[in-house]
Amino acid sequence: MLKILRINTRTKEYAFEEVGPYANLGGRALTSRVINKEVPADCHPLSSENKLVFATGLLGGSTAANSGRLSVGTKSPLTGGIKESNSGGLFAQKLPKMDLLAIILEDKPAEQAPFSTIFITDGKVIFKDATDIAGMYTYPAHDKLLAEYGDKLCACVIGPAGETVRKTATIQFTDPYKRPARSAGRGGTGAVMGSKKIKAIVLDPEFGERVGPVDADAFKVSRKTWVDILQGHPVTSQGLPAFGTSVLVNVINEAGALPGKNFRQGQVDHVAEISGEKIAEIIESRGGKTTEGCHPGCVIQCSQQYNDKDGNYVSSGFEYETVWAFGANAMIKDIDDIAALDRLCDEIGMDTIEMGNTVAIAMDGGIIPWGDGKAAFELLRKVGTDDPMGMIMGNGVVFAGGAFGVERLPVVKNQSMPAYDPRAVKGVGVTYATTAMGADHTAGYGVTANVLKVGGDIDGHKKEGNVELSKNLQIATAAIDSMGFCLFVAFAVLDCDNGVQVMADLVQSYTGNSFSVDDLVNLGVGTMKDEQEFNKRAGFTKMDDKLPRFFETDPLPPHGVVWDYDEDELQGAKV
Amino acid sequence: MLKILRINTRTKEYAFEEVGPYANLGGRALTSRVINKEVPADCHPLSSENKLVFATGLLGGSTAANSGRLSVGTKSPLTGGIKESNSGGLFAQKLPKMDLLAIILEDKPAEQAPFSTIFITDGKVIFKDATDIAGMYTYPAHDKLLAEYGDKLCACVIGPAGETVRKTATIQFTDPYKRPARSAGRGGTGAVMGSKKIKAIVLDPEFGERVGPVDADAFKVSRKTWVDILQGHPVTSQGLPAFGTSVLVNVINEAGALPGKNFRQGQVDHVAEISGEKIAEIIESRGGKTTEGCHPGCVIQCSQQYNDKDGNYVSSGFEYETVWAFGANAMIKDIDDIAALDRLCDEIGMDTIEMGNTVAIAMDGGIIPWGDGKAAFELLRKVGTDDPMGMIMGNGVVFAGGAFGVERLPVVKNQSMPAYDPRAVKGVGVTYATTAMGADHTAGYGVTANVLKVGGDIDGHKKEGNVELSKNLQIATAAIDSMGFCLFVAFAVLDCDNGVQVMADLVQSYTGNSFSVDDLVNLGVGTMKDEQEFNKRAGFTKMDDKLPRFFETDPLPPHGVVWDYDEDELQGAKV
Repeated sequence: MLKILRINTRTKEYAFEEVGPYANLGGRALTSRVINKEVPADCHPLSSENKLVFATGLLGGSTAANSGRLSVGTKSPLTGGIKESNSGGLFAQKLPKMDLLAIILEDKPAEQAPFSTIFITDGKVIFKDATDIAGMYTYPAHDKLLAEYGDKLCACVIGPAGETVRKTATIQFTDPYKRPARSAGRGGTGAVMGSKKIKAIVLDPEFGERVGPVDADAFKVSRKTWVDILQGHPVTSQGLPAFGTSVLVNVINEAGALPGKNFRQGQVDHVAEISGEKIAEIIESRGGKTTEGCHPGCVIQCSQQYNDKDGNYVSSGFEYETVWAFGANAMIKDIDDIAALDRLCDEIGMDTIEMGNTVAIAMDGGIIPWGDGKAAFELLRKVGTDDPMGMIMGNGVVFAGGAFGVERLPVVKNQSMPAYDPRAVKGVGVTYATTAMGADHTAGYGVTANVLKVGGDIDGHKKEGNVELSKNLQIATAAIDSMGFCLFVAFAVLDCDNGVQVMADLVQSYTGNSFSVDDLVNLGVGTMKDEQEFNKRAGFTKMDDKLPRFFETDPLPPHGVVWDYDEDELQGAKV
Repeated sequence: MLKILRINTRTKEYAFEEVGPYANLGGRALTSRVINKEVPADCHPLSSENKLVFATGLLGGSTAANSGRLSVGTKSPLTGGIKESNSGGLFAQKLPKMDLLAIILEDKPAEQAPFSTIFITDGKVIFKDATDIAGMYTYPAHDKLLAEYGDKLCACVIGPAGETVRKTATIQFTDPYKRPARSAGRGGTGAVMGSKKIKAIVLDPEFGERVGPVDADAFKVSRKTWVDILQGHPVTSQGLPAFGTSVLVNVINEAGALPGKNFRQGQVDHVAEISGEKIAEIIESRGGKTTEGCHPGCVIQCSQQYNDKDGNYVSSGFEYETVWAFGANAMIKDIDDIAALDRLCDEIGMDTIEMGNTVAIAMDGGIIPWGDGKAAFELLRKVGTDDPMGMIMGNGVVFAGGAFGVERLPVVKNQSMPAYDPRAVKGVGVTYATTAMGADHTAGYGVTANVLKVGGDIDGHKKEGNVELSKNLQIATAAIDSMGFCLFVAFAVLDCDNGVQVMADLVQSYTGNSFSVDDLVNLGVGTMKDEQEFNKRAGFTKMDDKLPRFFETDPLPPHGVVWDYDEDELQGAKV
């Protein structure tokens, strides 16, 4: 039976505990339950009362395709609500091999305490002085860890943004290519890690054993069916592998839903310069890689390796939302500038969505010119230093809006919106409004039925059907995140009859515990309930489940659509 | 019948309207009703949908002692809730003489629009280009207006903090000595005026007629009784005139309730250096004035003129809360440094309470050393400039805490606490928690019964009786603010049998409308209802009616008291 490892970052005591009340939970279901049950909802996110939870999914450590995603949970410094931030990398699959379901960081040391690296091995936790890597960018810090622990390193690390407790700070995870390029990106999880004075966590590369399914025969059958499902759908087998997630740039622009210039327009003129097709062409011409997985066992391979003009590595995990945030919302046309910004965000440890939007706010406030990628780079480079401009930029859209006097702030619960205008893709707009996470496309990706016509065809310009769409997707997503699956499996699952059943079969045969389709749905519903309950105790009401008023008053070109839900209608998307 | 003047700051159109649904309201009752009825609760405070209301009280323009206070209402950029900020000066008494009950500023011009001065005269409103005073500190800007309009100037003006829409920005009003030294201090009203691109409002000195009571004989009798009441109480006739409001420094320190070092202690060692007695001694030795009124007709005279070592004017309206904020909470021992900071706040147009607390946060975050008044001055001088540190400091405690990574933030609804530790003066603590204004001592000053033993004797260390005390004071205060009285009349009223009746008689005889003690109470209750209703629609819940957790977990020296209310108990202080 897997254990939960609790680590007190002040006393440096630790305990490997039985799962107890957390039995049969994994991933997001587990992180959200722990946060809801153990963290005072009204505590300051950077106080000793907050906790930081890393949890593998129910299928963590298995060979089920695309089941190696990690959930990181905490009370968010950005939103003040509960947060699950989901990451690829090696961490989730390594934990079960070390007999661990989750790691919980608790308490915090004194303000002046030095940073530590936590080294976890067989039954032991060792705090190591991290003075040598404190203050460093994540790539060089990770390189130092690589030099110390070897090529099988499995780690997570925060950058200067996390160390200085910025509200946009990420935790960066080792990817399959020895880079800290995978992020628990949203909500400032890295700031919580920084407040606890932990620079890195290393899972002992020399310790761990392969984990097998309890019912090997049944698992083998389901596993094969599962791969067939993923490889049988055009989005997961063709669109995403060919062009990465940026395949969406043209698609969403075509739909008039690509937010431009701080959500003033639904299309941008320079779309051809930042499209997935263009990026793939550049990658190929420079000897990069158009397909990579964010974790072993991925059969979709939507990640990429983007190189500079000289063929040197710049960035990976270069997602559509990043390209959009800098490329369309901040109007930066040079894709090399955008790639450099992506890398900078990973180095300093900052959420690319929040930072792209924050750059747009700086442009809207006249701090730097619209579309100036170089100026944006210089602005973001200050984050994590003692430069007050870095303090501002590193705290995200609402904070920067307060500093620069900009009132047009595309946020819900203080978290800024990703790459889909809610006026034109109402299915995802309902999710922005109602998920406990703040504006988050991954919590219920209504783009499926609204734009891609996957799993149905619901008009994204109209209200009809979109509350139900969002609710169903939110439940499904919470379950997917709890099993450890990559969200993109949903594309394939939504378009086939047996997808959900196969996911349930995989869990049942892997864990040996009875797990039906009903159990899967209940897992999603239960997770959402934990999250809504926590936020309610933290003071959130239906008035926080709203979009900013400018979405109601300003029609979005070219289709002239507005946001026209009232708060009571939207409550239908909650459980 | 007085009129309401509505001015559209975008179109520059205006209208003198009948009071209509706002009949029989004045001061805070009027501003809170207008904001509640006319402003969308979920609008951005700096958006065109917000309004800024200046209202005279029911006794405005009368000769009733201490009835010349002004209410300024808006949706607060600091708290996100409703705000009434109360000021002395000449404005409130001038409005009725111009046949005006209130001025409402609406809408806002484009971002790039120049600043204007609004000149109001007989039936006309003239927008004048304010380029010559835009960007200027309030004293020199006010001097320019004095030069233009003469010694009978009656104006209000914002400083660079308001122009740059800082959340702590005040509106400064002409005092009886031709200085812009009276502030609508709390909640960022100056930022709303700045967002509407109004640098100053001038009420035509050449226009206006004396206003008389409708029932002159009855008014004369009540007016005399009223003066006797005020002059018969030791606080309003001796303590406040002799030493100004800083008479409280020793008193509150003695009670162990003077918050020191960002609310870590209830007493400070250097209290003798910043006491009211010491300040009066210095004022006298330097040829200043120990007694002044903030508006004509004041018989308490708690204001002062503080001079520097060379006998030159430094500041007035140098209140206890200012002395405390810089002197005790930020541990600045040099009273001349504190006076210079007070003046700087008036010049840039910033709330001294919020700024003193923000300086303490900067000290707590290691930005400047504890107690360093010169460093604090340099930090605050950046507010209103394009220096990012000024953007941070000018936005108050919560913002600075987010920038500097400080989690110990003594705020309710994002507004920081004034000079009374809620653990040791629970009567005012309940008010901090429950008033719609955010942490505000003036909304229900439980210091009366808790410390001064005025109007009763209720232990400030214990819970018993303090919810009721706060509720009653909150109702009374809302009524006092609505009639236009100075809050300090409460000291005298609470200790005599006929005080409330005389206030009601004054209103009835002045306005000619029936106004009983019940009407007075209902005026207070109705005002609070408007405020609570607005905040509820803006998303506030009982979870926002709480103090930060450190007040519960950290006992306050020297008495070791903690805050021990739960949120449901506190709801008893609301109407």
